[in-house]
Amino acid sequence: MSEHMSRRDIDFLLYEWLDTLELPSRDRFAEHSRETFDGVLDLSEDIATKLFATHNKISDRTDPEIGPDGKVVLIPEIGQALSAFNDAGLIAASFDEELGGMQLPHTVARASTVIFQAANAATTSYAFLTVGNANLLAKYGTPAQIDTWVRPMLEGRFYGTMCLSEPQAGSSLADITTKATPVEGGSAELGDAYRIHGTKMWISGGDHELTENIVHLVLAKAPGGGPGVKGISLFIVPKFLPDGTRNDVALVGLNHKMGNRGTTNTLLNFGDGTFGDGDGAVGYLVGEAHRGLFYMFNMMNEARIGVGFLATALGYAGFQKSLEYAKVRTQGRPVDAKSADVAPVPIIEHADVMRMMLAQKSYVEGALALGLYCARLLDEEQTAADPDARDRAHLLLEVLTPIAKSWPSQWCLEANSLAIQVHGGYGYTTEFDVEQFYRDNRLNPIHEGAHGIHGLDLLGRKVIMDGGKGLQLLGETIGATVARAKAAGGESAEYADQLAAKVARLGEVTAQVWASGDPKLALANATAYLEAAGHIVVAWLWLDQSLSATGDDDFYRGKRAATKYFFAYELPKTTAQLDLLASLDRTTLDTDPSWL
Amino acid sequence: MSEHMSRRDIDFLLYEWLDTLELPSRDRFAEHSRETFDGVLDLSEDIATKLFATHNKISDRTDPEIGPDGKVVLIPEIGQALSAFNDAGLIAASFDEELGGMQLPHTVARASTVIFQAANAATTSYAFLTVGNANLLAKYGTPAQIDTWVRPMLEGRFYGTMCLSEPQAGSSLADITTKATPVEGGSAELGDAYRIHGTKMWISGGDHELTENIVHLVLAKAPGGGPGVKGISLFIVPKFLPDGTRNDVALVGLNHKMGNRGTTNTLLNFGDGTFGDGDGAVGYLVGEAHRGLFYMFNMMNEARIGVGFLATALGYAGFQKSLEYAKVRTQGRPVDAKSADVAPVPIIEHADVMRMMLAQKSYVEGALALGLYCARLLDEEQTAADPDARDRAHLLLEVLTPIAKSWPSQWCLEANSLAIQVHGGYGYTTEFDVEQFYRDNRLNPIHEGAHGIHGLDLLGRKVIMDGGKGLQLLGETIGATVARAKAAGGESAEYADQLAAKVARLGEVTAQVWASGDPKLALANATAYLEAAGHIVVAWLWLDQSLSATGDDDFYRGKRAATKYFFAYELPKTTAQLDLLASLDRTTLDTDPSWL
Repeated sequence: MSEHMSRRDIDFLLYEWLDTLELPSRDRFAEHSRETFDGVLDLSEDIATKLFATHNKISDRTDPEIGPDGKVVLIPEIGQALSAFNDAGLIAASFDEELGGMQLPHTVARASTVIFQAANAATTSYAFLTVGNANLLAKYGTPAQIDTWVRPMLEGRFYGTMCLSEPQAGSSLADITTKATPVEGGSAELGDAYRIHGTKMWISGGDHELTENIVHLVLAKAPGGGPGVKGISLFIVPKFLPDGTRNDVALVGLNHKMGNRGTTNTLLNFGDGTFGDGDGAVGYLVGEAHRGLFYMFNMMNEARIGVGFLATALGYAGFQKSLEYAKVRTQGRPVDAKSADVAPVPIIEHADVMRMMLAQKSYVEGALALGLYCARLLDEEQTAADPDARDRAHLLLEVLTPIAKSWPSQWCLEANSLAIQVHGGYGYTTEFDVEQFYRDNRLNPIHEGAHGIHGLDLLGRKVIMDGGKGLQLLGETIGATVARAKAAGGESAEYADQLAAKVARLGEVTAQVWASGDPKLALANATAYLEAAGHIVVAWLWLDQSLSATGDDDFYRGKRAATKYFFAYELPKTTAQLDLLASLDRTTLDTDPSWL
Repeated sequence: MSEHMSRRDIDFLLYEWLDTLELPSRDRFAEHSRETFDGVLDLSEDIATKLFATHNKISDRTDPEIGPDGKVVLIPEIGQALSAFNDAGLIAASFDEELGGMQLPHTVARASTVIFQAANAATTSYAFLTVGNANLLAKYGTPAQIDTWVRPMLEGRFYGTMCLSEPQAGSSLADITTKATPVEGGSAELGDAYRIHGTKMWISGGDHELTENIVHLVLAKAPGGGPGVKGISLFIVPKFLPDGTRNDVALVGLNHKMGNRGTTNTLLNFGDGTFGDGDGAVGYLVGEAHRGLFYMFNMMNEARIGVGFLATALGYAGFQKSLEYAKVRTQGRPVDAKSADVAPVPIIEHADVMRMMLAQKSYVEGALALGLYCARLLDEEQTAADPDARDRAHLLLEVLTPIAKSWPSQWCLEANSLAIQVHGGYGYTTEFDVEQFYRDNRLNPIHEGAHGIHGLDLLGRKVIMDGGKGLQLLGETIGATVARAKAAGGESAEYADQLAAKVARLGEVTAQVWASGDPKLALANATAYLEAAGHIVVAWLWLDQSLSATGDDDFYRGKRAATKYFFAYELPKTTAQLDLLASLDRTTLDTDPSWL
């Protein structure tokens, strides 16, 4: 049993809420059953507890460094844990059997993932960056590229990275300057050969000695493309070439971070001559030239949902730790029994501590529900019998992706802050675990698109594309829950009314901001839109969960208490955000930087 | 010039807003003038910049440790900086000339303090803990106690601590178990002698080699007191006794923290026999027995406002750093000019970055205004000619203290988070400064009364004492600003209407929760009350500042932009909080811990 995640909650979400057991009726998952799913989850808990959680703190205290030989030095526990993970076949959990994978539904594979992330976010990242890389190549690569790079990744012999950002171009990919020059020497099978010159920044897992090879997926500009993002192509640039020679990819430096320390984060030079003649690192084109961003976006959506899970896992681990603490730590007395003769009570009995526990629960379990709901949509998109259902799942996933990335990154970080607060002074010390979770989690609103970028994505793209079909579909989907909740009556019906009003208002506000006819003004408060939409979506998922939690045992009562909390304390926060949007406030546009 | 604080802002607050130049007309400050005030601020900037800021990062990376001889090892820069501070007389800035002090107004002394805190919060704490200690003893100590302990503290030869918490009793002082037993050997001058046995936790500055001696102020239970807090007395327990012998105060361990590392934080044993015969550490009674908490509260109010300044300073430093960064870092293009042919713009030109800058500005300058306003009230309380004015200042300060502690601790931490966000990935690295500010600042919602405690203090004590006179006075004081703003017309009048409505609602809600007749229910959402009241108070102070910022230069425009931001983005957040309070929501009371 993992102490960082509630297995009861995972089982509830999979089997009582998301109808995961319907999936084995589909061809792709025909070999699976509750038994195989539980087997994977049991195995995940076992490995995560015994090999991942055990070195999380050591890893935090031992920032990776570059040894005298220029190689990255990591604590050995990282490699040992990952080996067990790979040997159990978990790195290929959701991949095709044909590629050596387990062909698990994404819903179950993600539930397995989050167990590892909660136990040790940093170590886990090496594997999941590789999964994302392999997914992209499995989809867009040639058979030879798959044989050469994907299969070894799915065996855990190679790891993968995504190389997008550059020192001068983080969020703005249009400004990357890494260049790709076509050369002789490639092959139709492995892809056209190019030489790559440039510098890539913030590359997680960018160098290490954990595997025989590292497969970098690199965005670079090849001749003949348009300006900006149109000129970008995608290349496989392995650390070692297929013939075993060292490619000219040089580790320039490691970034030292406030958290998430176990994952090396690197500055890499491609083609600077360190391991070559200066003619450039050898890269193999993926797919067609100039379509690099299209391929990468495919992987980025997955990576964004993955960041949401990472944030969720850290929030969840802090929730579990502070819950345990709040139940045993005694301090103070009830407001109505202040006499010193009365024994101090466990702090969870104080209203404000209970508030902090319910807030954490609503954030972390709400975020987990959101992430698994998205994974379920991905399964639906890929395996639903009805093509229309596939399209709907795809569209809904498009709308939900910015929220699935940003909402957990914001609120599970807040959960970690509350976990510290519940621990009092102890929570601020390195003797306890929660301060590390907080530091680790502060990364998540930054990478894979900074928080504000997702507001622009949601309000500027997702809710208006196809004439607003995405938002309409979200409204219909929530509407179905609202109808069920109304039929259920009682508190559910009250929540349904509140939620329906919010969804209607969100639709109105969306129309209002775009009716301005001025994209700059419409998008000025896109972050408030993102946050309001996120709270509405999570309120919906809480209501939906609560409809599956009608029993009398403590677990169901807890789900209903968290739902009650979310509707009383959280959803009303959106009123101010939606009012701000409706007012088309110009404060940020009209302030001159020189005034600050 | 300090890069961590805006001197222009300090000057504005002191001279254009708080009418600090009226103070030299009072006897106590007759030796002072704008010239002496500016001299202190100039000197503070100079020492803070040259000696405090310069080792802030090194100090963070060099966690204090216990050397082989059992002594605390600090980097030498801490002692060097503090020596310069002491030698300049700044440690005694607000003390009586008779005690060797400068007899500066608190308003100016606090402005000096915050400059040091922004440059290096951790190093500064040794001095300001000492100031708090000396203040208490100067007020309640005997002449001999003052000569023996206060004078050396004001010369910087001794430092002081407050020893309240114990491992089992943090927020709950009723449960302390440290015992004081009266013995022969004291003197009427130095105070009755006691022997002290017990363990104190979280003692900042609890041990070090910076000074000849450390003066611990220790809460302990002496025979004959009532149960709980009534039995508590206050003792001076110096590390070295007046005859030079070592007192039995033993360093048991250092707490290793996520931030604020330069300040040692200790676990101390009193009377465990390490430096004595086991009969107990020698302590000298302060004032009368069993009135310890009364004396300590006097110091705690000051300490609480001090924590507010500490949080403010860290938030301010992050604001300054991120402002500088946002103006020079280029990335991306305006929403309405996306072509790659257009050069990237400084990120502050993006609406969401400007939002993050205005939010930070409104938090940190709002918090500084709040802190200095409280310092001005303290001057008023102590030196106003009219006794009635003194009483009013005292009462208003009582009401504002929980807000002055908690609001900056919450929102200047949020400012630090935004400063990281503005820096993107760079902000997450230890190469930049902002991640340290964020870690340092996470302490402030915890110590000197955890966040929730101040909600209970405000709603459970301050706003209802004397039949609600405190809240009434706050309402009248805000009302005066509202009247001036209405007279000014324009946007000011609009803000005045919004603010007046909020103040009225706060009054109604206060009455509503107490009308329940059930203290447990009335206080169930005291934290929401604290936060709503805090936002209303800071909105008032922004409106009041803006009325003094009517000129045309950039600085005044910036003040008005921040006011606009606060009324558009921040004040509306209180609606949901006040609605929650008015609903007398029982969620936290009705949830059983076993359900979580």
